[in-house]
Amino acid sequence: MSSFRTMEWVDGNLHLLDQTKLPGSEEIVVCKTMDDVCESIRNMVVRGAPAIGCAAAFGYVLGVRSLVKDLNVENISPNSCSSLVTEGREKIYYSLLKTRPTAVNLEWALKRMQSIDYKKYKSMQSYVNAIELKAICLLKEDINTNLKIGEIGADLLGRCRSFLTHCNAGGLATGGYGTALGVIRSIKSRLGDINVFATETRPLLQGARLTAWELTKDGIQVTLITDSMCGALMQTREIDAVIVGADRITANGDVVNKIGTYTVSVLAKENNIPFYVAAPWSTIDLSTRSGGDVEIEQRNVNEVRGFGDSVWVQENLDIFNPAFDVTPVEYVSAIITEKGVIRGSVGLQEMRQS
Amino acid sequence: MSSFRTMEWVDGNLHLLDQTKLPGSEEIVVCKTMDDVCESIRNMVVRGAPAIGCAAAFGYVLGVRSLVKDLNVENISPNSCSSLVTEGREKIYYSLLKTRPTAVNLEWALKRMQSIDYKKYKSMQSYVNAIELKAICLLKEDINTNLKIGEIGADLLGRCRSFLTHCNAGGLATGGYGTALGVIRSIKSRLGDINVFATETRPLLQGARLTAWELTKDGIQVTLITDSMCGALMQTREIDAVIVGADRITANGDVVNKIGTYTVSVLAKENNIPFYVAAPWSTIDLSTRSGGDVEIEQRNVNEVRGFGDSVWVQENLDIFNPAFDVTPVEYVSAIITEKGVIRGSVGLQEMRQS
Repeated sequence: MSSFRTMEWVDGNLHLLDQTKLPGSEEIVVCKTMDDVCESIRNMVVRGAPAIGCAAAFGYVLGVRSLVKDLNVENISPNSCSSLVTEGREKIYYSLLKTRPTAVNLEWALKRMQSIDYKKYKSMQSYVNAIELKAICLLKEDINTNLKIGEIGADLLGRCRSFLTHCNAGGLATGGYGTALGVIRSIKSRLGDINVFATETRPLLQGARLTAWELTKDGIQVTLITDSMCGALMQTREIDAVIVGADRITANGDVVNKIGTYTVSVLAKENNIPFYVAAPWSTIDLSTRSGGDVEIEQRNVNEVRGFGDSVWVQENLDIFNPAFDVTPVEYVSAIITEKGVIRGSVGLQEMRQS
Repeated sequence: MSSFRTMEWVDGNLHLLDQTKLPGSEEIVVCKTMDDVCESIRNMVVRGAPAIGCAAAFGYVLGVRSLVKDLNVENISPNSCSSLVTEGREKIYYSLLKTRPTAVNLEWALKRMQSIDYKKYKSMQSYVNAIELKAICLLKEDINTNLKIGEIGADLLGRCRSFLTHCNAGGLATGGYGTALGVIRSIKSRLGDINVFATETRPLLQGARLTAWELTKDGIQVTLITDSMCGALMQTREIDAVIVGADRITANGDVVNKIGTYTVSVLAKENNIPFYVAAPWSTIDLSTRSGGDVEIEQRNVNEVRGFGDSVWVQENLDIFNPAFDVTPVEYVSAIITEKGVIRGSVGLQEMRQS
């Protein structure tokens, strides 16, 4: 396991390790309401597709708990208040869903929460207890999924010892352990000495701040580079494999992930380095045909104008700030999921049917 | 011409526009001694291969002027003090040469200064006057070279209207006008509306701070992106051409330029976008066989740990910080010089002989 907790459910509140403050300080944001969770997802106190999904599930619990309390229907049979509850649940679902548009795990987790039929419960309070348990299970399940991905990835990557990763697909991006960094953790535990190169990942520097922090914390050798150094690194150093996470994988096998992932994949291809994606099955969106059909979140341009309180560009400058890009399936050597290794769109369709 | 002065020789001192302070403030650093110039080159108050060459020429003048004064030989015939002057000139030459190792224009400019035979002059003072004039000529020559490159580039690029550039190969990187941005300025004056996308260029942000500043100042539409967005930009937007500068071009046509240039060239190839390099002939180093033989400057890792006073990574983290990378000749569509357009290593050899 990773030696830190990305999130914890404590006495009915969601505790999030504030990822905007790392590595400078390890602070906890306590979310007591659904709105607190929405704000934490939007502001990237919690980020990473699987982690967002888990946090949203707890946000859903907080939303429903508050709804039931406000309606004063705790001890009432669901059938007696169904229209108000149905309407309230819809509102909660969409409030959480619209916090960030690209990662599909958010929708996946919310659908699982929403699928619990409150009408089956004797009282609204017992329904609230059930969804609380469900969210706790989703978090545990996510960690177990990551451990599985780690083992499958370690089997696949064999004796690779030198890795390049982009952004943070680590314990911090998931319930714990991580997807891409989960595979790296599993390989580390099998082989001992390994090397990881982490891109800083502008504009929000998840590589410099989060990947470097969590690998160092777990005793894994990490070297930081700027995003612009990927090519030179592959040209001049031995990199055995690139491994990254994903925010959404479409039906044809295209990978939507942190801006810059496509660039790394092209460089890997050009330098004959395998390019792996590690992600839970919940990241796979079979309802979307290809990466071109995915809404790419455009974030506030102030993120590019500087970092934190530091601003280094002039006023009124035109800036692009897409948070993600699309890596076409042909650049992906394999996708590592908890169900197994997928190669190409055909592999994806086969896995779907199995 | 560009609407600002990168450097000026004023009353026997070198005035440099402090590029570390842009775009926040436009400050002048006055260099009264050779050491001031060395420090300004090392600290990147002045940067960009051609600009470094020009600044070093003035640094040489300041060094020799001070030497002559210290030896109290202003009115003495050079032959009477030749061993001391020869020794002093060597010291000055190497002090300036070692400020930065990669850009070859520095050596080129210093060699031109050093080639002036002081023994031909009646007095040391008249020799000092001659080298002062020479340095002023080099600066003017550099600006004229850029204007020529601009015209040749505009002829070549025809009706391209949308460009991506990396780092700053502009008026700020040269005596004035610029190499890559000189071509863009020439195209702008022919075609009117054009678009430039500028990468921010971590770690020192020359794109975000300098390219954005100088293009805006000259009324050229510029959009800032992070380095990691190059791939997505080429995938999703119409980019007619990539154009960058160079710090050294080796005999086989390899291009040594700001870290990240190789990455951009690979992405351009993958997306069928032509990749042009604009550089004066003084950037071409026929004495070095290929890019692999060039010393790549490794700069202080603190540059990657943050920017300015802002630090965002933990203590004691391993970091790489090469300032340049090598773009192999096969990724370069053409090199635009003041002598004409060069295609590949064969073109370079032919141009050499002409």
